[in-house]
Amino acid sequence: MERTAYSLADIAARFGGQVMGDAATLVQQIGTLEKAGKGQIAFLANAKYRKQLEASQASAVILSKADADTTELPRIVCDNPYSYFAKLSAFLNPLRDYAPGIHATAVIGKDARISPQAHIGPQVTVGDGASIGAGTVVMAGCVIGENATLGENTRLYPRVTVYHDCVVGNHVIVHSGAVIGADGFGMAWDDGRWLKIPQIGRVLIGDHVEIGANTTIDRGALDDTVIEEDVKLDNQIQVAHNVHIGAHTAIAGCVGIAGSTTIGKYCRIGGSAGIIGHLKIADHVEIASFTLIGKSITEAGSYAGIYPFSKNDEWRNNAVHLRHLGELVKRVKTLEKEIESLKGEKT
Amino acid sequence: MERTAYSLADIAARFGGQVMGDAATLVQQIGTLEKAGKGQIAFLANAKYRKQLEASQASAVILSKADADTTELPRIVCDNPYSYFAKLSAFLNPLRDYAPGIHATAVIGKDARISPQAHIGPQVTVGDGASIGAGTVVMAGCVIGENATLGENTRLYPRVTVYHDCVVGNHVIVHSGAVIGADGFGMAWDDGRWLKIPQIGRVLIGDHVEIGANTTIDRGALDDTVIEEDVKLDNQIQVAHNVHIGAHTAIAGCVGIAGSTTIGKYCRIGGSAGIIGHLKIADHVEIASFTLIGKSITEAGSYAGIYPFSKNDEWRNNAVHLRHLGELVKRVKTLEKEIESLKGEKT
Amino acid sequence: MERTAYSLADIAARFGGQVMGDAATLVQQIGTLEKAGKGQIAFLANAKYRKQLEASQASAVILSKADADTTELPRIVCDNPYSYFAKLSAFLNPLRDYAPGIHATAVIGKDARISPQAHIGPQVTVGDGASIGAGTVVMAGCVIGENATLGENTRLYPRVTVYHDCVVGNHVIVHSGAVIGADGFGMAWDDGRWLKIPQIGRVLIGDHVEIGANTTIDRGALDDTVIEEDVKLDNQIQVAHNVHIGAHTAIAGCVGIAGSTTIGKYCRIGGSAGIIGHLKIADHVEIASFTLIGKSITEAGSYAGIYPFSKNDEWRNNAVHLRHLGELVKRVKTLEKEIESLKGEKT
Repeated sequence: MERTAYSLADIAARFGGQVMGDAATLVQQIGTLEKAGKGQIAFLANAKYRKQLEASQASAVILSKADADTTELPRIVCDNPYSYFAKLSAFLNPLRDYAPGIHATAVIGKDARISPQAHIGPQVTVGDGASIGAGTVVMAGCVIGENATLGENTRLYPRVTVYHDCVVGNHVIVHSGAVIGADGFGMAWDDGRWLKIPQIGRVLIGDHVEIGANTTIDRGALDDTVIEEDVKLDNQIQVAHNVHIGAHTAIAGCVGIAGSTTIGKYCRIGGSAGIIGHLKIADHVEIASFTLIGKSITEAGSYAGIYPFSKNDEWRNNAVHLRHLGELVKRVKTLEKEIESLKGEKT
Repeated sequence: MERTAYSLADIAARFGGQVMGDAATLVQQIGTLEKAGKGQIAFLANAKYRKQLEASQASAVILSKADADTTELPRIVCDNPYSYFAKLSAFLNPLRDYAPGIHATAVIGKDARISPQAHIGPQVTVGDGASIGAGTVVMAGCVIGENATLGENTRLYPRVTVYHDCVVGNHVIVHSGAVIGADGFGMAWDDGRWLKIPQIGRVLIGDHVEIGANTTIDRGALDDTVIEEDVKLDNQIQVAHNVHIGAHTAIAGCVGIAGSTTIGKYCRIGGSAGIIGHLKIADHVEIASFTLIGKSITEAGSYAGIYPFSKNDEWRNNAVHLRHLGELVKRVKTLEKEIESLKGEKT
Repeated sequence: MERTAYSLADIAARFGGQVMGDAATLVQQIGTLEKAGKGQIAFLANAKYRKQLEASQASAVILSKADADTTELPRIVCDNPYSYFAKLSAFLNPLRDYAPGIHATAVIGKDARISPQAHIGPQVTVGDGASIGAGTVVMAGCVIGENATLGENTRLYPRVTVYHDCVVGNHVIVHSGAVIGADGFGMAWDDGRWLKIPQIGRVLIGDHVEIGANTTIDRGALDDTVIEEDVKLDNQIQVAHNVHIGAHTAIAGCVGIAGSTTIGKYCRIGGSAGIIGHLKIADHVEIASFTLIGKSITEAGSYAGIYPFSKNDEWRNNAVHLRHLGELVKRVKTLEKEIESLKGEKT
C-alpha cells in the first residue's frame, strides 16, 4: 500500500497543536519512539519514556508542553499527546473499505432488509427478517439470527454470531468469534434433574461499542441484557444474562460478570476480574485485575483483592497459615489480655 | 409472532397447582414481577422479592403456599414456583422449529448418515462417515468431523465444531462457538523441545447436556473425555483431556478443569473457579466462584478460597503482610513463650 | 480403520531402546496401563503408577531402566519412556491426510498464492494477496485475511480466523475457534469518550507452535505481537497486543497476558494464571495456576500466589481477618514492645 506523506504543518492545520522545528517535515506513518524511523512520527505520552525520546530516530514527535523542550526533533506540542496520536493514527490508517453488496455465497433469509450500502461477505448467513444498516460490514462466516438488527456503519469481523432478535447499534465493532445473544445459564432444579428456563430476553448493544474476540454476551432470561454506548469490551469476556453495563465503561480481557449485575458508567475493570450476580456497581469504579467483587459497591473509587505472588516456597510457608488466621487473631487477643493483667499486677 | 392466551384454569389443568382469584384471567407470556404487564404472569420464588409483588402490574402470579395470601392478584399456588415457571415458560415459548432437510450450501461427506428428520443449515460441513439423528438441528456454519455422531433432538447453534469421532447424545444443546474434541494439551519434553503426543481419545457427551458459547472440551489423550447426562456447562468453560464430569453437575462460566480430573454427580461450581489435574471431587460438592481446588475433595459440602476485596489502599496495606505471615506466626509463638515465662517468674 | 501391527523388535529398530521378553510380540496401538489390552503397548513414566503396571493387561510396556525388572511383560527399556511413547504414538497414529486442492465452496481472493500442495477445505475464505504454503491444511470455515501468510505443513482446524497481514510459520497447529490478529485493546480517553487507536502491528507466529481452541492473540498496536518457535498454547488463552513469548514456553488454558509483556524462553505457566502489562519475565520461570504476576521476574524459578481453599465456613472465618492484617501486625509489634518493657523492669 502506498502511503501519502503529510507535513507537520498539514497535520497541525487539521488536528491543532503547535509545530516546533521544521514544519515542512514529512511523515506518513506512526511509530514508537523506539522503532520509528524516517517518515514516521512518534509520541511521548508518559514521562518514563523520555530516555527513548533521546535516542529516537523518528522524523518527528508529538508531545506535551511540559516536554516541548526535551528534544530538538521537529515536533507537535499539544495538550493530550495520546489522544492526538490516536486521531492522527486513525487518519493515517483508515479502516479498509469494503464495497457495498452481498457476496454470491451469502445466504439471506426471507424478508431480511439489507441496506444497498451494506457489505455482506462470503459464507455469511442472515436470518429471516433481520435488518442491516447502511455502511455496515459483515465479514466472512458471520451468522445473523432471525429478526436481529445491525445498525449503520457497524463492522463485524469474520465468524461473529448474533442470535435472533438481538439489536446492535451504530458504529459498533465486533471481533471474530464473539457470540451475542446465546442463552443465559438459567435452569430450575426439579425432581432430581435440571429444567431449562427459556431465555426470552434479547441483547441490546449501544452505539460505538467495541467487543473483543471470542467475547460472549448472553441474552436476557425475561428482560434484556444491555450494553450502553461507548462501552469497550476486550477479548474473552463473559457477560451473563440481564447484566447492564453503563456507558463509557472499559473492561479488560477474561473478565466474567454474573447474571443480573448492573455496572455503572465510566468504570474500568482489570483483566480476569469477576463480579458475582445481582450486584450494583456505582459509576467511576475501578476494579483491579484478578479481583472478585462479592458485594455491591456504592462508592466511586479503586478496589482490589489480589493474592500477592512470591517464590513458590515462600508462598507455601506463608499461605499455610491462612487456614488458621482466625485462631491467630484469638491468640493475639489472649496475649493482649495477659499483658494487661501482668501490667495491672505491677501497679 | 402472535401469541396464544391461556386462562389460569387452563394452565392449572396442564401443570397442576391451585388457582386463587379469577381463574378466567388470560396470560400469554411470562414476565418479571417488576416489568410484567397485562397478559403476563410473573412468579415469586424468593421471599426477598415480596416488595416487588406488592407493586406488580402483572395479570397473575405464580407463588408458593407460604406466599399465597401476600397478594390479591389472580394467582397459581404451587410447591415449587421456580420450576413451575420454567415449565410454563417452555410451554409459552417453544423452541423455533427448523424444517427437516439439508441446505443447498451445506457440504456433506461420503457415507455420512443424516436422518431425513434432521435439519442441516447453511454453510454447514459434515465429515465423511458422520451420523446425525432425527429431530437434530445443526445451524449455520457448524463443522461436524469425520465419523462424529450427533444423537436425536439435539440442537447445535451456529458455528459449533465437533471434531472427528466424538459422540454427542440426545436432547443436547450446544451454543455458538463451542469446540468439542480439539486436541488435549499433551506433549513430552525431548532433547530441548516439545514432542506432541497424539490425542487419540474422543469426547462423549451424554443426553440432556447443555454446553455454553465458546466452551471448549478437549478429546482424551488415550481414553475418552466424558460428560455425563444432564450436565450443564455455561459459557467459556475449559474442560481438558480425560476429565470426567458426573451427571447433573452444573458449572458456571469461565471455569477451567485440568486434565484427568474426575468431578462427581450433583456438583455446583461457581464462575471462574479452577480445578487442577488428576483430582477426584466427590458428589454433591459446591465450589465457590474464583476458588482454585488444589487437592481432591472426598466429602460433600461447600468449599471456598477467595481473596476478599477492599478499597485499593486497604488491600495494599493488608496484603503486604501476607508475604511475612509465617514470620508473624513465629513472633506470636515467641510472645506466648515469653508471657508464660513472665507469669512463671511471678508465681 | 485397519491398523498395522509391529513387533517390539521392529519398534526398537526404529526408535531405539532394549527389548526384554518376547521381541516378536505384536502391538498396533498405545494404551494406558489401566485400560490397554491385547495388541496395545502401555508405558510407565511415573513411579506412582507401578501398581497399575502389576495389573496391566497390555501386550507390552515401555519403561525406564530403573523399572525394567518390575514386570515380566514383554517390554522396551529406554531412557525417557514418556518421549518414547510420544514418538511411537505419533508413528502409530499419523495425522489424517488431506488431499491437495481447493474445495469448490471456498472463496479465494485476488492475487492469493496458494500452493498446489495445500488443502483448502469447504467454506473457507482466503483474502486478497494471502499466501498459503505446501502441505498446509486449512479446514472448513477458516477465514484467512488479506495478505496473511501461512507457512508449510501447517494445519488449521475448522473455523480459525487469521486477520490481515499476520504471519503463521511452518509446522504450526491451530485449533478450532482460535483468533489470530484481532485488534488489541487500545484507546485514548478524549473529551468524555473513548477514541480507538488503530492497531497497525501484526501477529508473527514461529514454527512448530501449537495454539489451542478459542485462544486469542491480538495484533500489535504499532509493532508486532510475537510468538517464537515451539511455543505451546492451550485453549482459551488471551494474548494481548505486543506481547512477546519466548521459544519453547508452554502455557496452560485460560491464562491472560496483558499488553506489551515479554515472557522468556522455556517458561511454564499454569492454568488461569495472569500477567499484567509491560512486564519482563525471565527465561525458565514457572508460574503456578491461578497466580497473578504483578511485577517483572528477573530470576528463574517457581512462583505462586494462590489463596488456599477450605470448607466454606472455615474460609469465611479466616478470610474476614485479611482486611485487618496490617492492624494485627501492629498489635503484635505493640505486644513485643510491652514484653520488652516488662522484661526490662524486672532486671
